[in-house]
Amino acid sequence: VRIAYQGEPGAYSEAAGLRLSPGAEMIPCESFDQVFAAVAGDTVTHGVLPIENSIGGSIHRNYDLLIEHHLPIVGEVEFRVVHHLLAYPGTTFDQITRIHSHPQALAQCEQFLRALPHVEVVATYDTAGSAKMIRDGAVADAAAIASERAAQVFGLTVLKSAIQDYDDNITRFLVVSKSGVPLGVPDKTTVVFTMERNEPGSLFKALSVFALRSIDLTKIESRPLRGKPWEYLFYVDVAAGRQEPRCERALNDLAEFATTFRMLGSYPSWQRREEAEDGAAHGSRGTDG
Amino acid sequence: VRIAYQGEPGAYSEAAGLRLSPGAEMIPCESFDQVFAAVAGDTVTHGVLPIENSIGGSIHRNYDLLIEHHLPIVGEVEFRVVHHLLAYPGTTFDQITRIHSHPQALAQCEQFLRALPHVEVVATYDTAGSAKMIRDGAVADAAAIASERAAQVFGLTVLKSAIQDYDDNITRFLVVSKSGVPLGVPDKTTVVFTMERNEPGSLFKALSVFALRSIDLTKIESRPLRGKPWEYLFYVDVAAGRQEPRCERALNDLAEFATTFRMLGSYPSWQRREEAEDGAAHGSRGTDG
Repeated sequence: VRIAYQGEPGAYSEAAGLRLSPGAEMIPCESFDQVFAAVAGDTVTHGVLPIENSIGGSIHRNYDLLIEHHLPIVGEVEFRVVHHLLAYPGTTFDQITRIHSHPQALAQCEQFLRALPHVEVVATYDTAGSAKMIRDGAVADAAAIASERAAQVFGLTVLKSAIQDYDDNITRFLVVSKSGVPLGVPDKTTVVFTMERNEPGSLFKALSVFALRSIDLTKIESRPLRGKPWEYLFYVDVAAGRQEPRCERALNDLAEFATTFRMLGSYPSWQRREEAEDGAAHGSRGTDG
Repeated sequence: VRIAYQGEPGAYSEAAGLRLSPGAEMIPCESFDQVFAAVAGDTVTHGVLPIENSIGGSIHRNYDLLIEHHLPIVGEVEFRVVHHLLAYPGTTFDQITRIHSHPQALAQCEQFLRALPHVEVVATYDTAGSAKMIRDGAVADAAAIASERAAQVFGLTVLKSAIQDYDDNITRFLVVSKSGVPLGVPDKTTVVFTMERNEPGSLFKALSVFALRSIDLTKIESRPLRGKPWEYLFYVDVAAGRQEPRCERALNDLAEFATTFRMLGSYPSWQRREEAEDGAAHGSRGTDG
């Protein structure tokens, strides 16, 4: 198993890939586009891509890239984000005049940063990349916001721990693979569709195919349809495997109502895996967890 | 009328404010937060904020700020974005080694930039701010992507015109005001609500209050509910004024079903104004436009 991810070693995407598949060979890429290209070009077996953070929201670039490329979603993984303030060994907190990190990480530590009005905040392309920059330059007056693993990888000191504003800071990643083989029994399905613009209630009609069958939706996301102002692509995560008969019927109905419809993948939900792991850890799958 | 906007003079937000209210005094601000603060602090009468671009999608920061502040939406305005490549007078296209602009503008000129592999692309906080930077530094090897007005304001040369990937590149702006007085007869209403997480079909139920009354929705946007992973705030734009009886009833029903509900404003849609202007320009309001 070779998994491509965006960022430097120590990036949260790398940790997510290893959580999904411990021992996998993790291949760093500069951009999300390059992760898709590596999977499409068979230099890796899978790609892991952040799609949503519980604080910052959706990572729209990856929603767009799922459309541009034709790589099925075969799995998902969630990873709890804990941000630390990292500096070159010997640097003290009072010496810091600049803090570097990815805009999403900076936004997730907004309250921490607001309490440091004299520190300049610098947006970079990657959390672990900021840590690398400080190591490479042996910079003495700057710090990076990144993971604990980034501190280990780049030999930096943790000046402050767990500086994110919310404890429940979780990123959900999608796994794509050219093979299309789901990483377990599918119980979640992602589709994207468009509806007729000038028909009132068209989204309601689309959602009815699931609601009338008591199929839950875990996420709905809209993105602009380029070249057609104020028309949208709707991405929907359905809490059912595509081969369950009620889901199959719902998707057939949706494909009938929609002006365009595409299946992006059907795969095992991370939530079920976590429940199973919790159950195993407690020696039972009871409801006490 | 004093209108606050984010950016330097020559920014698209400034142009949008002037389109809405020609002759208004336009007050530049460094950030969206400062626009909200200026309106809340009565230093201006209105604030104009980009909320959505037909290519790049929603500007989520402003959706979040609408919740943090309690400033009603009183109007909207659309503005067609035409990006130009601007440089210091005397600079030729072949001399350019760096191009600066706001990440949204860079994304909207992706194809143009991709054809220039040897040029470094630099993200900045503002389109007009990039133009200002080139003027202030008398920089000879860099260019900015910004509006034609930014070229005039900062005395720069247009090296390439209309370099955006799509002709139909339109940004929609919201107007907020402490007074809450809508800028005309409302025919559009924006609300935000949350639904019970574990109830399948809860979004469907929410949308039913509009669909069953044939009230169209022009936009739905979801944002994370902070501190509650994978729960969402739903923002909905309704194509009806809040005081129309059918809309009032629909909103009452939604408030009953929702776990939280807030009215963000009811205001005249830009689309109706454009139709009226088209009608006036053609001497009639016929269907030939």
